[in-house]
Amino acid sequence: MVPKVAENDIARAIIQVLKEGKQDTFHEIIKELKPYDIAVQYKCLPVKHHPLFLDWLSMEELTGLLRHLSRDAQLHILRTIDPNRSTDILEMMKNNDLAFLLSGLSKTEIDALISEMEQDEMTVIRHIMDYPPKTAGRAMTNRYIWVHTSYTVERAIKKLKSFATLATYLNYLYVIDDDKKLVGVVSYRDLLLADPFAEIEDIMSRNLIQVNVLTKQEEVAKVIGRYDYVSIPVVDADGVLLGIVTVDDVLDIVVREANEDIEMLLASGKEIDFKTKPTVATYRRLPWLILLLFIGLISGSIISRFEATLETVVALAFFMPMIAGMTGNTGTQSLAVVVRGLVSEDMDVKKMLKLLFRELLVGIMIGLICAVLIFIIAFIWQGSFVLGLVVGASLFATLIIGTLAGTVIPLILHKFNVDPAVASGPLITTINDILSLLIYFGIATMFISKLM
Amino acid sequence: MVPKVAENDIARAIIQVLKEGKQDTFHEIIKELKPYDIAVQYKCLPVKHHPLFLDWLSMEELTGLLRHLSRDAQLHILRTIDPNRSTDILEMMKNNDLAFLLSGLSKTEIDALISEMEQDEMTVIRHIMDYPPKTAGRAMTNRYIWVHTSYTVERAIKKLKSFATLATYLNYLYVIDDDKKLVGVVSYRDLLLADPFAEIEDIMSRNLIQVNVLTKQEEVAKVIGRYDYVSIPVVDADGVLLGIVTVDDVLDIVVREANEDIEMLLASGKEIDFKTKPTVATYRRLPWLILLLFIGLISGSIISRFEATLETVVALAFFMPMIAGMTGNTGTQSLAVVVRGLVSEDMDVKKMLKLLFRELLVGIMIGLICAVLIFIIAFIWQGSFVLGLVVGASLFATLIIGTLAGTVIPLILHKFNVDPAVASGPLITTINDILSLLIYFGIATMFISKLM
Repeated sequence: MVPKVAENDIARAIIQVLKEGKQDTFHEIIKELKPYDIAVQYKCLPVKHHPLFLDWLSMEELTGLLRHLSRDAQLHILRTIDPNRSTDILEMMKNNDLAFLLSGLSKTEIDALISEMEQDEMTVIRHIMDYPPKTAGRAMTNRYIWVHTSYTVERAIKKLKSFATLATYLNYLYVIDDDKKLVGVVSYRDLLLADPFAEIEDIMSRNLIQVNVLTKQEEVAKVIGRYDYVSIPVVDADGVLLGIVTVDDVLDIVVREANEDIEMLLASGKEIDFKTKPTVATYRRLPWLILLLFIGLISGSIISRFEATLETVVALAFFMPMIAGMTGNTGTQSLAVVVRGLVSEDMDVKKMLKLLFRELLVGIMIGLICAVLIFIIAFIWQGSFVLGLVVGASLFATLIIGTLAGTVIPLILHKFNVDPAVASGPLITTINDILSLLIYFGIATMFISKLM
Repeated sequence: MVPKVAENDIARAIIQVLKEGKQDTFHEIIKELKPYDIAVQYKCLPVKHHPLFLDWLSMEELTGLLRHLSRDAQLHILRTIDPNRSTDILEMMKNNDLAFLLSGLSKTEIDALISEMEQDEMTVIRHIMDYPPKTAGRAMTNRYIWVHTSYTVERAIKKLKSFATLATYLNYLYVIDDDKKLVGVVSYRDLLLADPFAEIEDIMSRNLIQVNVLTKQEEVAKVIGRYDYVSIPVVDADGVLLGIVTVDDVLDIVVREANEDIEMLLASGKEIDFKTKPTVATYRRLPWLILLLFIGLISGSIISRFEATLETVVALAFFMPMIAGMTGNTGTQSLAVVVRGLVSEDMDVKKMLKLLFRELLVGIMIGLICAVLIFIIAFIWQGSFVLGLVVGASLFATLIIGTLAGTVIPLILHKFNVDPAVASGPLITTINDILSLLIYFGIATMFISKLM
């Protein structure tokens, strides 16, 4: 890692050369930086220096910088720099990055941006954007090198040399047949070790792992993780090679999916990071909170139905937060296990039933232990044996139901191909809140004569 | 991906050849499978066929299989197969995998397992296990190839050839000087493109990204993600090359960290997956639930302090779940933003203050909107202007406090180098529950004469 101190020194040096107009020194400094570090410098730089900074960067540096900026910052740069340069940058960008950049824009804006691009590249971009979001098609890039089965090793190396800039990151060549179908892979290492006159067909590995263009990105991440690959080829239904997904993009996908799971499990609102404006953050979080407000009122209205019971034995109110809270907690515990389990496990009915049975047993055990505990506490605190029994029995029932709800609901959502984390958090809290209050006050009302 | 159907066919075929004792056919089938798929087959196989299956696998296949099994299954195999084979396997395992395998065992068990290993390997393993958990030292492997600055390209390729099995996955050679300090990297591609008689020193890239052996794994994942690397070298304080961390291990780290965040945010208990036994799952979840039970009782005891207020105006109970719930929810929303934000952002005081101010503004806006909404609802539902005011004012205050608590607490934990997700979920729920009830009943008690 570049240490922090150096970062500040570099920042000062950059401002200095920009002020003094020393373009050569500027290039010397920038040449030593990786794209991520150029982006860090750009972000630190006072805005008034931005135009010159961008102007002095080479096309490669500018493209690299862009990769590490937010979508808004990317668009801002593309709109402010010279139109010819921005077209060149769009052509140099990895096409999945470009598709991501464009995915938030309207059709006219897209047309304006890519109208000057070469016809080929434009078609590729439009094509990628036709694939459904979150599929391999959206994440794949065309920055790979293919060779034909009939190539010699020498010819393959020659091709590799002429496409050297494409190939910095990867370590495979993909082998296709006459129908452009993917039939094998050759690693750079294979090329290094092979006889220059050997045919690719004879040294390639036919033992291929590939994904379909419509495979979900989450699934692609699973596959690449299982087989420890750096990249994975993407094919259409006929086996024709369309692109590759690389592990650096998979890392991004995994982080994004985890964040989305947390967003949904905690109902924390979509895409809020440290830089989101307060109004935007409020706007994104408010829907959940208002939903939860009404959910809270449903619980309130259940309590109001049992007003007579509550008025008779006010002490019942003391245990309300505990019972509702515990039911919600046990539900989200189960939910967390299911949602994260689905990230690495493939599910079938047998596994589901096994999991459900396990959670039922867990619910019974947890319910029993907590019920005995709360019975003793309630008995000692409030001096009422019957109140202890009511609270204990309610907790036992609600904990089992809470655990099951937290397991069944995400499994059902998953079965119907809905992301199990969708609304599960608030959904389970609602259901568990309502169920727990109904059970608690129901049991209490049954025993009301003994409670007085 | 290998389609499911084929998987079942292969499973049947394997059982068939095991029964018939056809070792050659067995090898033909297995040869076509990747390690992950061999593991899938092993897990499907009836237990009675396990010994022969393991016996027939080559050392490479067995080692590959092990990588994809749980720690318990790995240990079971190592203890059941021939001791000579198990020693060989331990030597062939990537040493970070081995360190992970051993990390759960007692000293005597470790000694028993590794006693037969070669002295060199044993020293390496013990060394790795000396690094603190979750540091780069624990995740690094020694399966990389180094070359000296003075090597020619030809000699480097020769070395690469002789260590070919080590190098399947990687695409760099690491360049060291006379003091074993890391001074550069050379990619396979560089070797392919270079003149065979050039010196490594002249073609290597000196622009190095490296991490210290004590760098946290989370940080390593950030770095590798930023620079889009396949592997990153690990050095000690003097810059001496000790090992590398590869992106496949980083993927595992990222997934594990995300799971841990979720476990802690939802208090769902450590390391529970689909295969955890019910008693173990209960044992792991129960501590949180019992803690939360007592927390719930603190809320209950606060309510009991305000028993007189509650008896006078039972309708106050109707809004209790909503106020406590909303405060908890807004707190966990902020918490989620902070915890996940820290995964990709480096924090400084300026950023913290900015975030805190943002969250304060969000709290005020959300509080205002929800307060007005609940005032109207309460007024209409219960027909009391004062009750509406009490509920509205309480919600306004608790939402602001809840948002701030959800931001400040994880930031403080982070500042003191504690993982901000530790106990934050339950902690914030507790604090917010207690604060919200105190504020609510406090305000209600102030207006009690007007509420009657």
